[in-house]
Amino acid sequence: GEPRKPRADPAGVSVEPATDAAAAQDPALPAEYERLFKVVEENPEDFNGWVYLLQYVEQENHLEASRKAFDAFFLHYPYCYGYWKKYADIEKKHGYIHMADEVYRRGLQAIPLSVDLWLHYITFLRENQDTSDGEAENRIRASYEHAVLACGTDFRSDRLWEAYIAWETEQGKLANVTAVYDRILCIPTQLYSQHFQKFKEHVQSNNPKHFLSEEEFVQLRVELANANKPSGDDAPGEETLCFAPQRVTEIENMRHKVIETRQEVFNHNEHEVSKRWAFEEGIKRPYFHVKALEKTQLNNWREYLDFELENGTPERVVVLFERCLIACALYEEFWIKYAKYLESYSVEGVRHIFKKACTVHLPKKPTVHLLWAAFEEQQGSVEEARGILKAMEEAVPGLAMVRLRRVSLERRHGNMDEAEALLRDGITNGKNSSESSFYAVKLARQLVKVQKSIGKAKKVLLEAVEKDETNPKLYLNLLELEYSGDVQQNEAEILACFDRALSSPMSLEQRLTFSQRKVEFLEDFGSDINVLVAAYEQHQRLVTEQESLKRKSENGSEEPDSKRQRTDDQSGASGQMMQDMQANHAGYNYNNWYQVSPAAGMHTRDCVCVCAA
Amino acid sequence: GEPRKPRADPAGVSVEPATDAAAAQDPALPAEYERLFKVVEENPEDFNGWVYLLQYVEQENHLEASRKAFDAFFLHYPYCYGYWKKYADIEKKHGYIHMADEVYRRGLQAIPLSVDLWLHYITFLRENQDTSDGEAENRIRASYEHAVLACGTDFRSDRLWEAYIAWETEQGKLANVTAVYDRILCIPTQLYSQHFQKFKEHVQSNNPKHFLSEEEFVQLRVELANANKPSGDDAPGEETLCFAPQRVTEIENMRHKVIETRQEVFNHNEHEVSKRWAFEEGIKRPYFHVKALEKTQLNNWREYLDFELENGTPERVVVLFERCLIACALYEEFWIKYAKYLESYSVEGVRHIFKKACTVHLPKKPTVHLLWAAFEEQQGSVEEARGILKAMEEAVPGLAMVRLRRVSLERRHGNMDEAEALLRDGITNGKNSSESSFYAVKLARQLVKVQKSIGKAKKVLLEAVEKDETNPKLYLNLLELEYSGDVQQNEAEILACFDRALSSPMSLEQRLTFSQRKVEFLEDFGSDINVLVAAYEQHQRLVTEQESLKRKSENGSEEPDSKRQRTDDQSGASGQMMQDMQANHAGYNYNNWYQVSPAAGMHTRDCVCVCAA
Repeated sequence: GEPRKPRADPAGVSVEPATDAAAAQDPALPAEYERLFKVVEENPEDFNGWVYLLQYVEQENHLEASRKAFDAFFLHYPYCYGYWKKYADIEKKHGYIHMADEVYRRGLQAIPLSVDLWLHYITFLRENQDTSDGEAENRIRASYEHAVLACGTDFRSDRLWEAYIAWETEQGKLANVTAVYDRILCIPTQLYSQHFQKFKEHVQSNNPKHFLSEEEFVQLRVELANANKPSGDDAPGEETLCFAPQRVTEIENMRHKVIETRQEVFNHNEHEVSKRWAFEEGIKRPYFHVKALEKTQLNNWREYLDFELENGTPERVVVLFERCLIACALYEEFWIKYAKYLESYSVEGVRHIFKKACTVHLPKKPTVHLLWAAFEEQQGSVEEARGILKAMEEAVPGLAMVRLRRVSLERRHGNMDEAEALLRDGITNGKNSSESSFYAVKLARQLVKVQKSIGKAKKVLLEAVEKDETNPKLYLNLLELEYSGDVQQNEAEILACFDRALSSPMSLEQRLTFSQRKVEFLEDFGSDINVLVAAYEQHQRLVTEQESLKRKSENGSEEPDSKRQRTDDQSGASGQMMQDMQANHAGYNYNNWYQVSPAAGMHTRDCVCVCAA
Repeated sequence: GEPRKPRADPAGVSVEPATDAAAAQDPALPAEYERLFKVVEENPEDFNGWVYLLQYVEQENHLEASRKAFDAFFLHYPYCYGYWKKYADIEKKHGYIHMADEVYRRGLQAIPLSVDLWLHYITFLRENQDTSDGEAENRIRASYEHAVLACGTDFRSDRLWEAYIAWETEQGKLANVTAVYDRILCIPTQLYSQHFQKFKEHVQSNNPKHFLSEEEFVQLRVELANANKPSGDDAPGEETLCFAPQRVTEIENMRHKVIETRQEVFNHNEHEVSKRWAFEEGIKRPYFHVKALEKTQLNNWREYLDFELENGTPERVVVLFERCLIACALYEEFWIKYAKYLESYSVEGVRHIFKKACTVHLPKKPTVHLLWAAFEEQQGSVEEARGILKAMEEAVPGLAMVRLRRVSLERRHGNMDEAEALLRDGITNGKNSSESSFYAVKLARQLVKVQKSIGKAKKVLLEAVEKDETNPKLYLNLLELEYSGDVQQNEAEILACFDRALSSPMSLEQRLTFSQRKVEFLEDFGSDINVLVAAYEQHQRLVTEQESLKRKSENGSEEPDSKRQRTDDQSGASGQMMQDMQANHAGYNYNNWYQVSPAAGMHTRDCVCVCAA
């Protein structure tokens, strides 16, 4: 929309000078502005870039540049309430009072839980409203009401309530003050105790006739009269009840009764506060910031939410989620938790949360996008799901988990050609050979397992291995392909697979793993002892090669230390054959059987060889 | 055999008193002897136990106990040449000269490369021989010949050669001395240079007529005469050639010529020595000992053998192998290398080496047994192979590699029932549940892949998982079994496999791996987005559980350090989904996109939150 056009004035703020704001929209903007804007346009995650841009437009006092900058900024960081105030101030400074009001309204829609922004707004309204129509007081009261409805249940909303009470007191509406106290006294907030203290002063320093509503006042007098009737003998006559209390004791009794009633509420509220106090104390940064939160803070939010989910009313839970998602807007875990919570209440609510998370705060986080897409798919909105995944891929190209979800979405809906094409595209456009190979493996598995075409799968893997000759996963998948068939009939093909791996330019360590697997395969399924022995010897040659490399790399560090006893290296190598077998070392204790036991009293260094004596 | 019975005396040693040695064989032996013998009988690897036993019988001077102890000892440690000498000395001390001779002969058959044992034996012969028949000198000479043939090419055989030369010198057989020098001068030994020096002294201090054979002497005189004829004018007449040289110059010329001829041989031999010098210097312990060899020693043997295999004659290679297998008798790698070398020469040679290694020196080493069994199977001796593997299993029960070879031997020869029975025995008699499960997995694979019975395989795994509920390999193999079929038709069974694993008492970490695989499976092949989302949520619950455990274990060590920046944990957890994809972290750099870049000039600690300002 076009929020900046002058309109009728529902809030009663004074009308700005008859300048056409739209006419000023297209002058050439300063070059420095263009430069700074380009930075954030290209990289909206550069928060400092935005800070420099907004500082610049504020200093230069350039209205159009400011409007453009702030509007763009808030698309990404709507939770920065301080900047909404700055924006409104700029409009006001240029005389656009109505535009300033509009900015505040937009800000409060974006972050209705901001007590500060509400207070700034009401101050702005009181300073700038038109008082000629006699409705000013009502308009201000309506704004306070709007504000406390929006954020008055926040644990840290005390300043707003205090402002509201102060304003009603200023207006001399003492019954209204009492009514506001009656609301805040049953909301768990940080200053709950102070509110009760001030309420008692309010009661003690005013006449019940003034600070009570007429209904409560009458009801209270009747109650007191009834209470006194049976025991006292000089009760006032019925006719006097409608008038102001005549005697000091009656006023004191009423005050006592008023406070006594609230004391119960206060006690209950204190109990609620106490359950939340530690959690609230743990919230060190309730506002939004791009800086990461400490681990303890995140844990506190998790535990607090779990507490309210267990104990709180749905309203309380929702407010806490909303508060949390200001402080933790950049953590997808909380958006996901919120969406999950809303699932049992409202499909539209879930959708709204996912959309806000993905389009405003976390345009580059894949998990929340994947969950949103899954949610839409679950609702039957396949096209919507497709769009979400595509948008994510455009925002951050090359994320395998997103691409695989696109593939699986198409597969689930029978579009096998599209699924295959997406994987082939992954192969072709992989950032590097390892990424291409990853997709080749996925495609090969899909071709075998879904399309039932071993031939096509083999072709994919063979093409991949040509381009990525040192990737063990490709050789393994080729092997798996042959192994999945009849191992006796396929013995030659399986051995060919092993030999392809063994003659590849893979690292020695990886080739060792393959030669070991070859020996194991031949032991388990091979038909010819000669082939097994040859494979074993081939494996031993690789082991020897590795050991000689190891020796070379240790070169020089070798000390002729006769104390350093060595076990039979060969046994170690043959023991490798069994690395598949976990926790069974007991079976391989043959290595040391011939070692002279130190317990037998012979010092290995001093032991004269009895044979040579 | 019965080596201790008195026999005819081919070596000419004097006949012992007419006592029947066999009659003294069964007296009650001392209790202490029985105790010491029991120790080594039960644990022949306890070398110290043997040392105590042999010391005891020597001190007690108990002949029968000594015989029994030494005979038993040499079944295990035939290379301890010093003990052969001790044994012979005991026989001699008791007057059994012939038995002593027999002991020496047995010892020299066991370790013919022992220069020391040969020298002890010849000393024994010289001291104890019957000189009455006039053949004594020839018998001693024959013994020296036997000795130099057995070990005279050893690099360290110098003392034997020196003894031989000294003895011939003693006998006054100067031509024989020259002949012995002619042999040692072309053998690379440690003291090659000293031999040449002494040879020159021998030539300088004797008359050629005495130290040359008649043939060489005559030939040399002719040569010298012919050489002098064209240039000299007072050449001796033809008739004088047959007689001793008349003039000093002729003797000197002959000596010069004799040495000159040997100089060439010496030069060539020196060259051969120089090529082996470093290797020989590297042999710090040429004798047998139960103590392990240092790594550098083993490497030296490996490299020396490879050098001779490349450069030496077959005789030299064999002698080096035999020397090596004294020092390294307890290292199966060298036995295996030797057998491998002999393969192209002689089947019987290979068999002999394997037998010696497996039955004498390394009765508990599986690799050499496996290779021996494979060798016999290659030769078609299946029954032999079967026996070798069984013997190994009896020596060291519970070695999986041996059991698996027994299985594969039966499988290769069509005895599938036996193969199955051996694996079932492994399951039943496994030392622990993990070993039983190992065999269950092997049996299940054999049932599927060879016997083509998925049903039987599944039964085996399900029974195994009941007894070993926390073994991930069993769950994996069950999964593989279902996955090997049609994944779309088997989706329910596959998910049931996952759920069995997830509800098992496996560790949280292992269940996490399975829940992750479940998510991946559903992404790749699942039909229902709801099931995928549910699996993802299940996985996240496990992730959360793990994180809360981690937090608990870190409890207390957590400091409220605002410098410690944390990235979004949730993204890390979702990144786990991709752990399958190697080296592709580049795709997952979304975690930090919103972090304030330190390069932008803002100190994270001093940065006042602009939003809160």
